[in-house]
Amino acid sequence: MTPLITAFENSPDGGRGLARDMRVRWALEEVGQAYAVRLVSMAGLKEPAHLTLNPFGSIPTYEEGDLTLFESGAIVLHLAQRHAGLLPDDPNGRERAIAWMFAALNTVEPPIIEREIAFLFERDKPWFRERLPGIEKRVRDRLRRLSDRLGESEWLDGPFSAGDLLMIEVLLRLEGALLDDFENLRAYVARGQARPAFQRAYAAQREVFEQRHAARA
Amino acid sequence: MTPLITAFENSPDGGRGLARDMRVRWALEEVGQAYAVRLVSMAGLKEPAHLTLNPFGSIPTYEEGDLTLFESGAIVLHLAQRHAGLLPDDPNGRERAIAWMFAALNTVEPPIIEREIAFLFERDKPWFRERLPGIEKRVRDRLRRLSDRLGESEWLDGPFSAGDLLMIEVLLRLEGALLDDFENLRAYVARGQARPAFQRAYAAQREVFEQRHAARA
Repeated sequence: MTPLITAFENSPDGGRGLARDMRVRWALEEVGQAYAVRLVSMAGLKEPAHLTLNPFGSIPTYEEGDLTLFESGAIVLHLAQRHAGLLPDDPNGRERAIAWMFAALNTVEPPIIEREIAFLFERDKPWFRERLPGIEKRVRDRLRRLSDRLGESEWLDGPFSAGDLLMIEVLLRLEGALLDDFENLRAYVARGQARPAFQRAYAAQREVFEQRHAARA
Repeated sequence: MTPLITAFENSPDGGRGLARDMRVRWALEEVGQAYAVRLVSMAGLKEPAHLTLNPFGSIPTYEEGDLTLFESGAIVLHLAQRHAGLLPDDPNGRERAIAWMFAALNTVEPPIIEREIAFLFERDKPWFRERLPGIEKRVRDRLRRLSDRLGESEWLDGPFSAGDLLMIEVLLRLEGALLDDFENLRAYVARGQARPAFQRAYAAQREVFEQRHAARA
């Protein structure tokens, strides 16, 4: 049974790979699972049919037989637990990789989103310049801890895992900003982007943007 | 083997049950697992010994034999997968409960934290009053979707689960604020607080504050 995911018909990121379907596409590519995509318009996200799949009116969702999931973290965990390639074999290592998934989404991503929100909604406000250093300090504090832990390792804890996948996805939201002081994190992100599964996933989400652009021309 | 968790020696919330050890204590009580607690000072959080356990210098951590975990979400999931009582029996229901765990931590909590940060660091800033409505709108938008999905149900998806535990914990951070329009969410939170396991966990974290207070008097 080919799983079906949803993605933005017209992603606000213009195909830069920042929407959360990218995380799920990457995980699917890592485990070699073919998938189908249904594109949803911004209006469609708020319709009852979509809210049944995702109560918060967002993407991605995941449908596979009689299982329906939302939340990219939960979908990546589902794939990681059912296929080889995204969690280590030893039980303790699996648990630690899952801890890194939660760290990516609940410790590292929130201050990065706070910064995005400030750029999105407050860039023209008189207080923006005064607030920004505090916001960026919160991001850098997390990056510093992450950098210290990663050190010279290739991945966060043993082989590449779903924890690395989500952490790299979260760091990619910065689009290079604030990473200047953390050479090992820049190299870590680049190693993620160099993975063939990442590249296939990136191309697939980019294709949605290209096709839309071509249709409009 | 009795698991060992860490908690703040002097929690910034003054024993109001808002620190993240409360989530883990509640889960431990729900599954009937005895546990030990090591209190960590604010200075101790930044020391190498603690950073080895939790690279972000925070609480809680979880040690059980040769397994060490950080991230409250990962610890609650560990407990839920190894004991009965926090995940439904049917496989799809288990996955959906895990999706609600991620929804609590990655969709509902971030705007609530954004609001906490504003109250903590910007309450005396000239822009606070102008920013607050936008911040609170982001929280209310999530609460409205959550309220719509919960409807008149007792819990989010079938029996009480780790998804409810984390969602109620996240809503408790609001300490009643912004919940006025959502009677079903207020009742949902109250149902969580009425559970004997919640009350035991709450009393245990409160005891840390009381003992410290008594020692100082």
